[in-house]
Amino acid sequence: MVPGLAPVHRYIDEHLDEHLARIQEFLRQPSISDDGTGIEDCAALLRSYYAELGCKEAATVPTAGFPGIWGWYDVGAPKTIVNYCMYDVMPVAGEDWISPPFEANVVDLPGLGRAIVARGAINSKGPYRAWLNALESIIAVNGKLPVNVMFVAEGEEELGSPHFKQVVDAVMPHLRTADAVLNCGASQDPNGEFSMFLGNKGVIDFELRVSGARWGRGPSEYSIHSSNKAIVDSPAWHLVKAVSSLTTEDGNAVAVEGFYDDVAPPDDEDKELMRELATRFDPATWASIYKVNRWMNDMPREQIIEKYLFSPTLNITGLGSGYTGPGCKTILPHEALAKFDIRLVRDMNSAGMLPKLRRHLDARGFADVEIRQLSGYEWSRTSHKSSIVQACVKTFRDYGVDPVIWPTSGGSAPMYLFTREPLNLPLSTAGTGHGGRAHAPNEYYVVEGKGKIAGLADCEKFFCDVLYEYAMR
Amino acid sequence: MVPGLAPVHRYIDEHLDEHLARIQEFLRQPSISDDGTGIEDCAALLRSYYAELGCKEAATVPTAGFPGIWGWYDVGAPKTIVNYCMYDVMPVAGEDWISPPFEANVVDLPGLGRAIVARGAINSKGPYRAWLNALESIIAVNGKLPVNVMFVAEGEEELGSPHFKQVVDAVMPHLRTADAVLNCGASQDPNGEFSMFLGNKGVIDFELRVSGARWGRGPSEYSIHSSNKAIVDSPAWHLVKAVSSLTTEDGNAVAVEGFYDDVAPPDDEDKELMRELATRFDPATWASIYKVNRWMNDMPREQIIEKYLFSPTLNITGLGSGYTGPGCKTILPHEALAKFDIRLVRDMNSAGMLPKLRRHLDARGFADVEIRQLSGYEWSRTSHKSSIVQACVKTFRDYGVDPVIWPTSGGSAPMYLFTREPLNLPLSTAGTGHGGRAHAPNEYYVVEGKGKIAGLADCEKFFCDVLYEYAMR
Repeated sequence: MVPGLAPVHRYIDEHLDEHLARIQEFLRQPSISDDGTGIEDCAALLRSYYAELGCKEAATVPTAGFPGIWGWYDVGAPKTIVNYCMYDVMPVAGEDWISPPFEANVVDLPGLGRAIVARGAINSKGPYRAWLNALESIIAVNGKLPVNVMFVAEGEEELGSPHFKQVVDAVMPHLRTADAVLNCGASQDPNGEFSMFLGNKGVIDFELRVSGARWGRGPSEYSIHSSNKAIVDSPAWHLVKAVSSLTTEDGNAVAVEGFYDDVAPPDDEDKELMRELATRFDPATWASIYKVNRWMNDMPREQIIEKYLFSPTLNITGLGSGYTGPGCKTILPHEALAKFDIRLVRDMNSAGMLPKLRRHLDARGFADVEIRQLSGYEWSRTSHKSSIVQACVKTFRDYGVDPVIWPTSGGSAPMYLFTREPLNLPLSTAGTGHGGRAHAPNEYYVVEGKGKIAGLADCEKFFCDVLYEYAMR
Repeated sequence: MVPGLAPVHRYIDEHLDEHLARIQEFLRQPSISDDGTGIEDCAALLRSYYAELGCKEAATVPTAGFPGIWGWYDVGAPKTIVNYCMYDVMPVAGEDWISPPFEANVVDLPGLGRAIVARGAINSKGPYRAWLNALESIIAVNGKLPVNVMFVAEGEEELGSPHFKQVVDAVMPHLRTADAVLNCGASQDPNGEFSMFLGNKGVIDFELRVSGARWGRGPSEYSIHSSNKAIVDSPAWHLVKAVSSLTTEDGNAVAVEGFYDDVAPPDDEDKELMRELATRFDPATWASIYKVNRWMNDMPREQIIEKYLFSPTLNITGLGSGYTGPGCKTILPHEALAKFDIRLVRDMNSAGMLPKLRRHLDARGFADVEIRQLSGYEWSRTSHKSSIVQACVKTFRDYGVDPVIWPTSGGSAPMYLFTREPLNLPLSTAGTGHGGRAHAPNEYYVVEGKGKIAGLADCEKFFCDVLYEYAMR
């Protein structure tokens, strides 16, 4: 514990039922960005939270999509942190839940103890409201936070944050005065291990579409009887050939010219972190979580880590054409679709990538194949030597925990808007606690805590500590 | 008109309302083989039709699937025909109809006049009940048919006739005594042109399936976060590579060793029919029906005809993996599927084909890719010099019509069970009348007739004539 915070910790213990109720309140307000359900109401609720904290500005930030929210807590402290929030959640249609996804009931989960079951429970409204509970506790006991906070929230993260840059740009003059970004969450895995990620990969989501109409070959308007294959070209075959041309035979290396051009090799800091990771990361545990029996190329541990962190990928997320139900339909489909994501590692820019793909396809007789970009993020990185990261690491260690530090996560997020030009802010994420089943039925956030997994009160206490740890540097 | 049939023709005109009502009755009884809706009741109804005609045997033929029906009309005539019926229809779920698909209402269709709109209207219950109406008319006027008839019906044609061989085998001793197969339908296209097809292609419907579990690589149980592509193999890429290996780059020639081994080139009779076809077949009309802007390889007319009739195909009917809806999902799918049909031309056997595919895949690192056969038919052919075909041609010509004779259709049907070993029966199809939108909403069968298109009364008269024309030979 950071010295002097005992009264705050006590306050959290005494108000835990209310804190739990606030989390439930936030989760009970749907905010499904997929179809807009509850988004406006959830935005208003979040704005009210910032106002309640005593923010001098708590405003909706209009965008071309769902609104962002801006909250500015300013007590003239020497340091200012930026804090990111996504207030939207994934849809629940067609899912089977043990407790209704927007009732946010506390359920006893086997092996985990009491947990809130709700859409958004772990991703990300549950831990976010816990973080706000922690801030309220500090203000209730100490009168104010030890840092200024700029809250920047969006309601479109699950859509790929198409308008988050508009939110950031709207408050850019303020953000230029900030010192760091701190995002608190629940970072324990089911075994109670802690991870910190110093960055994200970039991502480009896109589709390749073949249509007979666009191609000028094959059926142009609808699927036709498959007997016509003898004399009519097939958009589905055309797509398969176009897709197949993009990688080596094993599907693991990209054959698009220039794809790997800008890839930065691991630097000295990366290598240091990787050496440490190699002693902590257990591929067998990971393989058992993902039900993967053999790693690509049967790689040894060190190579798995390096590949995972530093290699870009071209992944098929979906294939669709014609009929795929039971039995058969004798059709020659008039269109075909493949969906992909490209993960970008450090020094790769998203901008040049699809033009390279375009040139690749054009050169191979696939000029008709349409490329449609769906969303994209750039990569993000922060040095582990930065003050905000060191504050998080120190707090973990004060709790007797040595977090596993990853140079980057394999996933993607819009953090580059803070960590790269023009802001170049260092960013850290930290937190105790555990949740799971993000994007799936029965998403949960542990309340009770059990074994090595922190309960809600300890999570909130950790958030208080990390904030003071940073403020005191 | 065949001499002496004027009273039968008159009878048809006088009973047309009743005949229309019988067609509606048959169509109003659903018989969806996809889910079994109404199948048993429709089988009973069809059996009652055969009994009504005076069949000495009218029985259900149990199979491992939906029942067949056997009707044996035997008046000791010198000749016996076999007559095939499919009493099942395609599903209608999710379709939008101008008139409910099982109400079989008569609707005035623009350009076509009054027509029955119903599932099965043209494929095939409408024309089939018209054929039975014709037979009833002959019996009502002349006391008996001029030939014996063996009715063989199945309720699984839309499923690929998986058990029709069981029906045929059950009555094989009787069928061995038959002389020919005659199937009457509605063969006019929207322009009023008549076509006769002297055979079918064979077909094999099958799937290729890749699963991480079977492969021993990639995610084995569920789709995982796509960031894992950096270190985990992809079943979707594996499928794309396997599928791509099956053809040349244009998707039009099959690269599986031995695929074309048994293909018979056109013989003299084929060449004679093709020369005639070349003067009748208009690729532009066909292209406009199928909305095809350019033929494969920009072939000239003669080559289109030869390719269509005499080349086997490997066609993709479906592709499926992961997520294909709007936007994107960041997943690495654990399984992938491709569906295909192979069309077999004369002298190709279905039996050897999938083993060749198996060897192809095994030799290229795709031993894990599962091949799952869904259904299959063999090819069928009858000489145009056979008595039954000549009877049909003669009847057309008596009506002042010169039918377009195709050596084979591009489609497939279970007729090989009659036309090849052990029965080796000649088979012909003939009929006037028009219908359309088989397998689609607003399927119709013209009742009124307009311009060159025959109405219901004329269709039934034609059926009577063709039967006598054959009997008299």
